[in-house]
Amino acid sequence: MTAYARLEAAFARIGAVEEAVAVLHWDQAAMMPPGGAAARGEQVATLRRLVHELMTAPEVPDLLDAAEAQQAPLGPWQRANLREMRRRWRHAAAVPGDLVAALSRACSDSEAVWRRARPANDFAAALPGLETVLALTREAAAAKAQAFGTTPYEALLDQYEPGGTIALIDSLFAEIEAFLPDLLADVLARQDSRPTPAAPQGPFPVAAQRQAALMLMQRIGFDFDHGRLDESAHPFCGGTPDDVRLTTRYDETDFGRALMGTLHETGHALYNRALPAEWRRQPVGRPRGMAMHESQSLLLEMQVCRSRAFAEFAAPLLHQIFGGDGPAWEMEAFYRRQIAVEPGLIRVDADEVTYPAHVILRYRLERAMIAGELAPRDLPGVWAEGLRQLIGVVPADERDGCLQDIHWYDGAWGYFPTYTLGALVAAQLFAAIRRVLPDIDQQIAAGNFRPLYDWLGANIHAKASLLPTAELIETATGAPLGTEAFRRHLRARYLEEH
Amino acid sequence: MTAYARLEAAFARIGAVEEAVAVLHWDQAAMMPPGGAAARGEQVATLRRLVHELMTAPEVPDLLDAAEAQQAPLGPWQRANLREMRRRWRHAAAVPGDLVAALSRACSDSEAVWRRARPANDFAAALPGLETVLALTREAAAAKAQAFGTTPYEALLDQYEPGGTIALIDSLFAEIEAFLPDLLADVLARQDSRPTPAAPQGPFPVAAQRQAALMLMQRIGFDFDHGRLDESAHPFCGGTPDDVRLTTRYDETDFGRALMGTLHETGHALYNRALPAEWRRQPVGRPRGMAMHESQSLLLEMQVCRSRAFAEFAAPLLHQIFGGDGPAWEMEAFYRRQIAVEPGLIRVDADEVTYPAHVILRYRLERAMIAGELAPRDLPGVWAEGLRQLIGVVPADERDGCLQDIHWYDGAWGYFPTYTLGALVAAQLFAAIRRVLPDIDQQIAAGNFRPLYDWLGANIHAKASLLPTAELIETATGAPLGTEAFRRHLRARYLEEH
Repeated sequence: MTAYARLEAAFARIGAVEEAVAVLHWDQAAMMPPGGAAARGEQVATLRRLVHELMTAPEVPDLLDAAEAQQAPLGPWQRANLREMRRRWRHAAAVPGDLVAALSRACSDSEAVWRRARPANDFAAALPGLETVLALTREAAAAKAQAFGTTPYEALLDQYEPGGTIALIDSLFAEIEAFLPDLLADVLARQDSRPTPAAPQGPFPVAAQRQAALMLMQRIGFDFDHGRLDESAHPFCGGTPDDVRLTTRYDETDFGRALMGTLHETGHALYNRALPAEWRRQPVGRPRGMAMHESQSLLLEMQVCRSRAFAEFAAPLLHQIFGGDGPAWEMEAFYRRQIAVEPGLIRVDADEVTYPAHVILRYRLERAMIAGELAPRDLPGVWAEGLRQLIGVVPADERDGCLQDIHWYDGAWGYFPTYTLGALVAAQLFAAIRRVLPDIDQQIAAGNFRPLYDWLGANIHAKASLLPTAELIETATGAPLGTEAFRRHLRARYLEEH
Repeated sequence: MTAYARLEAAFARIGAVEEAVAVLHWDQAAMMPPGGAAARGEQVATLRRLVHELMTAPEVPDLLDAAEAQQAPLGPWQRANLREMRRRWRHAAAVPGDLVAALSRACSDSEAVWRRARPANDFAAALPGLETVLALTREAAAAKAQAFGTTPYEALLDQYEPGGTIALIDSLFAEIEAFLPDLLADVLARQDSRPTPAAPQGPFPVAAQRQAALMLMQRIGFDFDHGRLDESAHPFCGGTPDDVRLTTRYDETDFGRALMGTLHETGHALYNRALPAEWRRQPVGRPRGMAMHESQSLLLEMQVCRSRAFAEFAAPLLHQIFGGDGPAWEMEAFYRRQIAVEPGLIRVDADEVTYPAHVILRYRLERAMIAGELAPRDLPGVWAEGLRQLIGVVPADERDGCLQDIHWYDGAWGYFPTYTLGALVAAQLFAAIRRVLPDIDQQIAAGNFRPLYDWLGANIHAKASLLPTAELIETATGAPLGTEAFRRHLRARYLEEH
């Protein structure tokens, strides 16, 4: 066996254990009774530590050196796989196994407390867990920064967005901050001049909402032979490419929240499911970072499912499922509600105009916390002030403030910027799709999502981690990642369309 | 760290990985979409192989030798833990890791095929998987038999019933076979003289059946903070002691099937849940073999929940949930249906008089297959003839014959005898309970299961694997395991009671 073949075998095992962790994580969020949390924490910490041991086994760096020295017989996928193996190894080798296990346990514990603390608006209960998670995360970030020669924040970011830099994020976010306040003011002024139609009256029973979600997922292309839809406190797309587990949460007064959340996660799901089967469980077979992943959820949720074309397709089907009558059910009313803009407190409910503000706030705060310049106990105050400055609203309590997202409590530091990077990628991708599929709106209006997903499949999904993010985007769209397509999209939809 | 302490740490990791496998196994049966089967097979095979590697790591036998040589400072639990560690190690060390992984994959594949083949009555589809599983199982059994100095069948049996012997099973089963035909004839004759009251007419909606199951589970003592009830093709009790996962399957024409199945699994669940928390994930903290485990399910299902006392408690509650009217709902009619005896085709639906015949048949057939004297392709014929000789019924197809049980397809060879050993233990335990709790019937009739479970908790559950099975039974009941209590119980309930 060549060094490369031995690495493939080693990483296939690692990939299988990581798939097991993904299923356990889904179960924890969607199925596990609360009393199972401590044991689950042990299970996941043990598996994560085993992954770390497999990854840092003494032969791995030797095999990496040997395989990198003999790349001639390798094809492009294998070379890319080797590049990703090296990246994974660098992350593992930079931190001791004890820290990996301690961080895993701390995240499990903290997440379990957060699940109770959020509905109870009890930030004090969640704070100790958050402090522990942050302390261990900073320890890991410092060790990785030292090994990689980056800042600690970038070392964390690299786990989600390989090669991501503060410089790029700061520059893109500065461009957004430059145009967004004026654009938001214009949008709100225009909206004032033609008020958003009232929503249909609920309640909308969970069973009907679930039926609607399943129907749309199926029409868009979700394969229920390889996936499920369940419920959890914080909706997500988990599981594995062959067994995709979506979750949502239902609000009987407003079917749109669960529905749009489900469509968002469906975008993630279709990416995972379409990853190349022949590279399953290999590093190169994984999604190309979380910015690209978020681009897939936001492309479906924001670009596609908030379009007028989608309203033409979906409004009658939803009307059929939920019943009811009156002007609230007209297609145009449905569409106008889908693109209503309102500065609000909750990120996952935010419209696409104000969403970047939520991300910019979290990015600033998590950078400050990782840098040791902001203590978690001071979060409520700086959160409120930051949100007020960005979009002029202030949460009345922590449930709608710094307790709303699972990420920090669950250890996902350096993740937040990928949401807005994803929105930029989504806009750029959809602009490219419009150029090659000029009838895309008619197709969507007819409920035909095949051309869209054929294009995404060929240009994004099937490429998995073959290319670095920047190259993947440029190859697919003909331009490096920027803010222009996003700005044009917002102007077109919110200021120019009739 | 002492050698013993290092072993505890090593086995804590092993236990955590095994818990993860248990959760994945539950998910596979209760949640996983069919397309996830292949990937799940990889995940579980990888984890099983990691367990095998952890167990057979070069230092483990040295640590076992060292700890066994220095037992003086160890308490009884630690010594028992060491004994169980040695037993686990012997099983692992006897077979190569490749065989462990191959067997795990073969079982996953075969089980996935069986799930489709059973409802389709397609034995031909399930046969190749069964043959592969059997071939690999025989290979493992031969290697273990060589290492242990037992027969191959006993080497398999030892996985489920530590120290179990063919001699003991043959002797107990021969006693049962000696009295059962006459007893069955007498029971059927008596039953003919007073026909079983007709069952209430369905359909009984799944939602109501689930409500009834949850209500009874809760009254009996199931802790939903540490467990769930779901559905699967083959009901089982899985998960972990802190997170017990029960499954059942519903039949809308007959609520009794799911209900009694759920109560059976609840007996298992209460055992798992009451295992001593301080020995969690250690070998000594595990249930004391599957005969004892089945005794707990059968004690609840058969001894308790088919008693007249339980009918007094449950019949009115079930009537309330299902509605309906007429004599079929009277307590006495409910009780008489609960103890109706009828030679039938399906083991899991069998009454307690004919149940041993099902087990004896499977025990004979699996011994013959392990010995190489019976080929799986010949199963349908010998199954039909065997069942005819034992209880005079013959399946019309394989769905109700050799396709009905998951066990062989899933790799659980040497498991079946534990069902009837469990029935014997259950009868002997309940006879002992009657002696120390003479008002147990009144307590059950009042829906008070606390005294029963306090006794079982103290005498069985809290002892986990501290004692060998024989010693545990003798300590709890004052006598070695025999058939007398079972025979007396059957005579009393089916021939002597009014």
